[in-house]
Amino acid sequence: MAFDAPDEQALAFREGMSRLGAAVTLLTSDGVSGRHGMTASAVVSVTDTPPTLIVCVNRKIRCHDLFVENGVLAVNVLAGRHQELTSRFGGRFQGDRFAGNNWIKLKTGAPVLEDAEVAFDCRIVDVRPVGSHSVMTCEVETVRLHALDAEGLIWFGRHFHHLHAGAPK
Amino acid sequence: MAFDAPDEQALAFREGMSRLGAAVTLLTSDGVSGRHGMTASAVVSVTDTPPTLIVCVNRKIRCHDLFVENGVLAVNVLAGRHQELTSRFGGRFQGDRFAGNNWIKLKTGAPVLEDAEVAFDCRIVDVRPVGSHSVMTCEVETVRLHALDAEGLIWFGRHFHHLHAGAPK
Repeated sequence: MAFDAPDEQALAFREGMSRLGAAVTLLTSDGVSGRHGMTASAVVSVTDTPPTLIVCVNRKIRCHDLFVENGVLAVNVLAGRHQELTSRFGGRFQGDRFAGNNWIKLKTGAPVLEDAEVAFDCRIVDVRPVGSHSVMTCEVETVRLHALDAEGLIWFGRHFHHLHAGAPK
Repeated sequence: MAFDAPDEQALAFREGMSRLGAAVTLLTSDGVSGRHGMTASAVVSVTDTPPTLIVCVNRKIRCHDLFVENGVLAVNVLAGRHQELTSRFGGRFQGDRFAGNNWIKLKTGAPVLEDAEVAFDCRIVDVRPVGSHSVMTCEVETVRLHALDAEGLIWFGRHFHHLHAGAPK
């Protein structure tokens, strides 16, 4: 497929990206600009020396500036049982996103979902614009691991999928 | 879990990252430094304006410098049927990694697996060191989509998992 027009290019790319499966996370933050959170799947591990993640966030989303102002965020990796949380932390939800779940604080003060599959408590050390988004480099200060028998939650082919952490079924 | 020593920190982080499910890809390149490829799961979509991916590669891996010298790479997103290719493109494989499969070229000249779930043909526009790795920003010049009924291949909990692109089973 060759690109003849920018719109066609973006459409083909979005269709292609829907086929790159990714873990579903909640990005959460607290600090001078208050407590905020959003659903995200553009999270990737960079290196373990020092432990570092990259998170990509659209600059038009309200959370973007609030995360940068707070200077910290937690990456809460969701398990299958958390699927309903993805709409609570989605763009259209009105109300208190943090109600109805247990949130704790680790080192940075960002809210951490108590029973997340795994949570990375991070300091944002670099913010770099790439097109419509910012690439946030996040150094991990603390990792919180949940019990091993949980199910992962994956977004692939425009659907949610549940995966067992043990051997595949 | 708090970190008391760098080694403990890296171990906890690696355990945590094993629970962040990710699509399995082959990164492939060709050009002035020849044809090379490796298995990778540290790939993330940044923006569709312009279509851009980020790929993280350890600077100690031979492919790293070869990719940078070639200036181009293809991200071949694997389907379930390609699982055996992950060891052929893994660190220990000796021999011609490209034998036994059909490879085509699109715009950049990077080898593209003919029946990849989706392939992104990219130009590397930025290479930035973060700890032991480089963060490569890759602008997508062409997207090649396979038929929709394929199975995705996900690495999660240190196992491969196969996902149907349609509604979850």
